[in-house]
Amino acid sequence: MTIPSVRKLMVIGVGVGDPDFVTVQAVNALNAVDVFFVLDKGPAAADLARARQAICEKFITHDRYRTVTVTDPVRDRGAADYPDAVRRWRDERAERLEKVIDAELDAHGVGGFLVWGDPSLYDGTIRVIETIIDRGALTVDYEVIPGISSVQALAARHRIAVNRVAGAVHVTTGRRISQGLPDDADDVVVMLDADLACAAYRDEDIDIYWGAYLGTADEILVAGRLGEVIDHIAQTRADLRQRKGWIMDTYLLRRHPVPPFQ
Amino acid sequence: MTIPSVRKLMVIGVGVGDPDFVTVQAVNALNAVDVFFVLDKGPAAADLARARQAICEKFITHDRYRTVTVTDPVRDRGAADYPDAVRRWRDERAERLEKVIDAELDAHGVGGFLVWGDPSLYDGTIRVIETIIDRGALTVDYEVIPGISSVQALAARHRIAVNRVAGAVHVTTGRRISQGLPDDADDVVVMLDADLACAAYRDEDIDIYWGAYLGTADEILVAGRLGEVIDHIAQTRADLRQRKGWIMDTYLLRRHPVPPFQ
Ligand SMILES: C[S@@+](CC[C@H](N)C(=O)[O-])C[C@H]1O[C@@H](n2cnc3c(N)ncnc32)[C@H](O)[C@@H]1O
Ligand SMILES: C[S@@+](CC[C@H](N)C(=O)[O-])C[C@H]1O[C@@H](n2cnc3c(N)ncnc32)[C@H](O)[C@@H]1O
Repeated sequence: MTIPSVRKLMVIGVGVGDPDFVTVQAVNALNAVDVFFVLDKGPAAADLARARQAICEKFITHDRYRTVTVTDPVRDRGAADYPDAVRRWRDERAERLEKVIDAELDAHGVGGFLVWGDPSLYDGTIRVIETIIDRGALTVDYEVIPGISSVQALAARHRIAVNRVAGAVHVTTGRRISQGLPDDADDVVVMLDADLACAAYRDEDIDIYWGAYLGTADEILVAGRLGEVIDHIAQTRADLRQRKGWIMDTYLLRRHPVPPFQ
Repeated sequence: MTIPSVRKLMVIGVGVGDPDFVTVQAVNALNAVDVFFVLDKGPAAADLARARQAICEKFITHDRYRTVTVTDPVRDRGAADYPDAVRRWRDERAERLEKVIDAELDAHGVGGFLVWGDPSLYDGTIRVIETIIDRGALTVDYEVIPGISSVQALAARHRIAVNRVAGAVHVTTGRRISQGLPDDADDVVVMLDADLACAAYRDEDIDIYWGAYLGTADEILVAGRLGEVIDHIAQTRADLRQRKGWIMDTYLLRRHPVPPFQ
């Protein structure tokens, strides 16, 4: 009787930047991995790879692990139908990853994905694994280990709660807020914003808490009235992006006055 | 010359339930604390205290720390003006805590607060410390250490992302969704819901991912079409609450079909 081949995959959130954001659960998971699969792409890829390597070196207590990089398909970011383009890209990515897992991981080996921040927030790793499972060609089981997200790092470094008393928090993208701020939440966290879309609201009664490269040695924080600090943030952001070649930033918009409880 | 007295406080997110959710940064912070201040109240207080004690015993490598419980003022939960009642209660709480810190912590001692989950999400610790600072009677400096929130534990255990591609996520309370679901987000995380307010939407095209006692030995997960599983969740919830005396649960409502990108 042959034991059926079930490869185990671990999706490990490692926090944003600071190796010490790693949880004890993540440290244990890191130590169980045989092969790490790396899906990075884009201008930050080299820095992210270095950050991950630092984590592995700091917390893995053996040297029986390998790292395999999976080349990503090129993504059509200009596509009119953005979600559809993302889906197509994801399918192609799943196919490539499936081949690599099949080739590199023993039948009962443990594969690992080090996810920047938390796997539940604007990250495609879970979806790519679900796509592989749906395709049905490879039997895999997987587990998700949460990690400290950029939203939490932003809040901790500014020493704020993201919600106000009994209030709601909206987590969204630059693209979405460029179409308007949400109606139902007065605290809005914005991620994936290439152009500081919040600048359009500079005349409104809003405070901003902005952070870039959170958790890293380059971390920078700015807080204040949106209209008063937005030019400074825009300038800082442009300078940093030019210097490093990439920027990762997140911010909270806190609308005033405190709205009456609905 | 006397060195001015600046007490240091650490607000340490310890994750929800599982001691291994603690980050390495939190472990280091725990080990730096001389006196832990405990603000718990309510039916879960004894269990939360036990969970915290387990964390301290597992991760603190010395025995030079003490724990001091601060009795909370009684909170008027039935008040018509809910946020105002919360604010009054917070001021009274700040005054009590200020007295205890002054009495129990040396001029250069380090005080610690173990926050369940993440300090940035529906937690009053940062606000109570800011209130003490505003009062001006005691000089304190403080630091915030992020932790794994119940939202992240929920997503990890269900192996889902909380957002859909390019989508927004709304984090809110049971009280708020009892007035209606938000217009601008199709993924809605609900916390602090005493009555499963989502039951009102049982006929809508919604999936629910529900989790109670996440991260603990009693963890329980249910997922499915809202209309099909809500009665089962309600029954499970009632039974558990009766058995343990309290319940902590969180859920994601995922509305369908996937909305067109705005
Ligand atoms: C693809 S998403 C990944 C989010 C990640 N899973 C998390 O939990 O934070 C990338 C976005 O996260 C935010 N981000 C990630 N790392 C960051 C950091 N170190 N500082 C500031 N923002 C960051 C930025 O808004 C960036 O555009
Ligand atoms: C006062 S808030 C504190 C939230 C906490 N700071 C966090 O980061 O999750 C309490 C609410 O959090 C959620 N919650 C906390 N711990 C939980 C757990 N272990 N399982 C499920 N929900 C939990 C419940 O919705 C509960 O009503």
